[in-house]
Amino acid sequence: MTGQPLWTLKLDRSEVDELAGRADPEAPLAGVRFAIKDNIDLAGHPTTAACPALAAKPAGASATAVRLLLEAGAVPVGKTNLDQFATGLVGTRSPYGACHSVASPAHVSGGSSSGSAVAVASGAVPLALATDTAGSGRVPAAFNGIVGVKPTRGLVSNAGVLPAVADLDCVTTLTRTVAAARTAFAALVRTDPQDPRSRPTPPRPPAGVAARMRVVAVPDGDLDLDPPHEEAWRAALDRLRGVAAHVVTVDIGPFLDAGRLLYEGPWLAARYAAIGRYLEPDGPHLDPTVRRIVMRGRDITGPDVFAGFERLAVLRAQTEPVWADVDALMLPTTPGHPRLADVAADPVGVNARVGTFTTFANLLDLCAVAVPAGERADGLPFGVQFVAPAFADAPLLDLAASWCGEPAAPPPNPPGTALLAVAG
Amino acid sequence: MTGQPLWTLKLDRSEVDELAGRADPEAPLAGVRFAIKDNIDLAGHPTTAACPALAAKPAGASATAVRLLLEAGAVPVGKTNLDQFATGLVGTRSPYGACHSVASPAHVSGGSSSGSAVAVASGAVPLALATDTAGSGRVPAAFNGIVGVKPTRGLVSNAGVLPAVADLDCVTTLTRTVAAARTAFAALVRTDPQDPRSRPTPPRPPAGVAARMRVVAVPDGDLDLDPPHEEAWRAALDRLRGVAAHVVTVDIGPFLDAGRLLYEGPWLAARYAAIGRYLEPDGPHLDPTVRRIVMRGRDITGPDVFAGFERLAVLRAQTEPVWADVDALMLPTTPGHPRLADVAADPVGVNARVGTFTTFANLLDLCAVAVPAGERADGLPFGVQFVAPAFADAPLLDLAASWCGEPAAPPPNPPGTALLAVAG
Repeated sequence: MTGQPLWTLKLDRSEVDELAGRADPEAPLAGVRFAIKDNIDLAGHPTTAACPALAAKPAGASATAVRLLLEAGAVPVGKTNLDQFATGLVGTRSPYGACHSVASPAHVSGGSSSGSAVAVASGAVPLALATDTAGSGRVPAAFNGIVGVKPTRGLVSNAGVLPAVADLDCVTTLTRTVAAARTAFAALVRTDPQDPRSRPTPPRPPAGVAARMRVVAVPDGDLDLDPPHEEAWRAALDRLRGVAAHVVTVDIGPFLDAGRLLYEGPWLAARYAAIGRYLEPDGPHLDPTVRRIVMRGRDITGPDVFAGFERLAVLRAQTEPVWADVDALMLPTTPGHPRLADVAADPVGVNARVGTFTTFANLLDLCAVAVPAGERADGLPFGVQFVAPAFADAPLLDLAASWCGEPAAPPPNPPGTALLAVAG
Repeated sequence: MTGQPLWTLKLDRSEVDELAGRADPEAPLAGVRFAIKDNIDLAGHPTTAACPALAAKPAGASATAVRLLLEAGAVPVGKTNLDQFATGLVGTRSPYGACHSVASPAHVSGGSSSGSAVAVASGAVPLALATDTAGSGRVPAAFNGIVGVKPTRGLVSNAGVLPAVADLDCVTTLTRTVAAARTAFAALVRTDPQDPRSRPTPPRPPAGVAARMRVVAVPDGDLDLDPPHEEAWRAALDRLRGVAAHVVTVDIGPFLDAGRLLYEGPWLAARYAAIGRYLEPDGPHLDPTVRRIVMRGRDITGPDVFAGFERLAVLRAQTEPVWADVDALMLPTTPGHPRLADVAADPVGVNARVGTFTTFANLLDLCAVAVPAGERADGLPFGVQFVAPAFADAPLLDLAASWCGEPAAPPPNPPGTALLAVAG
């Protein structure tokens, strides 16, 4: 037990045992306990999104992602705390209480998937479902020394997930190893008619997606990092030379400019469209920072939205030539690791800075994996992320595994092999 | 000479002769005269978009599409009239005057590419550039008995085209034959770094795109057509059985619902974002209907825009299973052919009805070809369109050629053939 407010709901032991008893012992995740971020439906239990006013109504059905994990034999144990309505990257914006990093009671857990990250990092479960619209899966992975995978949009169904920015939301996994994430994704990646944004995995990798990632780019100039982060980042750069066949540098300015649009541009209007109905009347069930931010979305105009899309289209076009020469990009997951006191002093500014390196992946339709990268001098975990074009998920996981010193995935069986094995 | 107000600008004979003299006589379009819809830049001449207030400032450079036609040897002869700011499907919304169908002075030319369609149908030029955001290329093709090709978004550059709805706009060709359109597209389809929405042709056809279109679907129920249109449509359905290997029926309800979003949903805010700055102060240089419509876009809220996207995502998901079983869809291009008097009596309602069958292709990322389909009993041209998924442009042109009794395109040379021919 961590003593942290990481759960919004823990299942009764009897319910867990019953679910475990139903799992096929031969299934790939048989008996694996998992936690569910509380913006994802679990049948028979409410989805609060950290808003207690939503606690009265149980979900009629489980989200597709939950159902697929159940079918793969995994066993849910509870729903986890989050920055309310998945709006935040710090883990403090919740009436259920603020989480902190497993490594320091003074430093934030990161969010919005705060409880899921703490549950995995503290050893309560080996797997948690999270979501990532702007870094909500990767940031708490970094702040707790675990692996967070934000897949390509549409590969994992969002059916049964409360939207934040529906065009950008991605169900995400939090695990302690890349291998565990890979097993979970083998169960989670399915085309889903229940999710209008579901996209099938292309039969062949699209142009620009390397089957094996050899060229990894890093930023060509200095980054604005907190000093302990800076030192850890330099160590990570050194380590990268032992992992990637070729390390090159690129200008990440257009990537960061695109990322800034998420908070400065029109996408707050999407949050208001998704959850505005829960923000009136005000009350103690609403986090005041979340409410203030999302209410700003109400006043964004339609023409402003399209002007923002225009700006994003231009920035995206500026970033795309990078992928002609580069298989993946490595960046720190965050520019620093704020204390809870820092967030309390400047809730919006500190949060926005945390997302400096994560927001662009969602807007630019990229996939990303956040992995541990040692510790800072002060003992806090440090994390980096690898980022690649849409549908590069499989080779990106291989790169992340290599970074973590884990084996790459075995190559898929040639067609017919499985049948031969059965025949033999 | 048609006596119609189809030109906003005719080039001097000396300029045309000079441009013709510069063209490579071996180029694929050597000497082919073409007209340019006046929302597309031609260097040295203004782009008015049918707004005389914009006539003072010449464009510094030609649009990419114009430059590519020039490089292919074609020779521009003038800029053509349009529904102002490409906002309309009728051809009457212009301070430069209303066009009418080449077949009837009482019936509209269609728009917004009115002048370009009349220029081609009247024989003034064999090729015109147009644009199509909601049917602006296909509708006037149908009303004048010619071929209008709306390619997959992003294949032809929009650089140098005044936007209407930037995410949906497509440069379009108007020609008298499918073969002429094909030759033009061979020159026009290029990836363009100047257009942030430029998309390369995939090296292989995407899943769901047939190399050869065998299964053509038609609507499974009755359509709400004007009586003379109805009769011509029944004849077209009969004729289709001689063209397509298999004719099947599908429910086009979700397609039409998606199309309605263009005028009823949030996309007017995109028009306001693109051209709102030209709408104040009011004056005789502004078409009153266009101004009234686009000003409505100012008051659409950001959350409304995202709610509209949500609705479109759901409808798009409902339409996509169709393409698993069907190569192309055939529909009438319009449900009727209004008179100028009908438009004057109900400028917005009549226009919206004209777009019933065309608007969805742009919103759903489809390609489409409008082709002549004989005449109605009253002698007016009747047109149908073939619609297919993105990047099905080449087989769709083959199907359209077959419909028109033209030969299919020759298969591309196997790799190396050209070199062998040179070596021989």
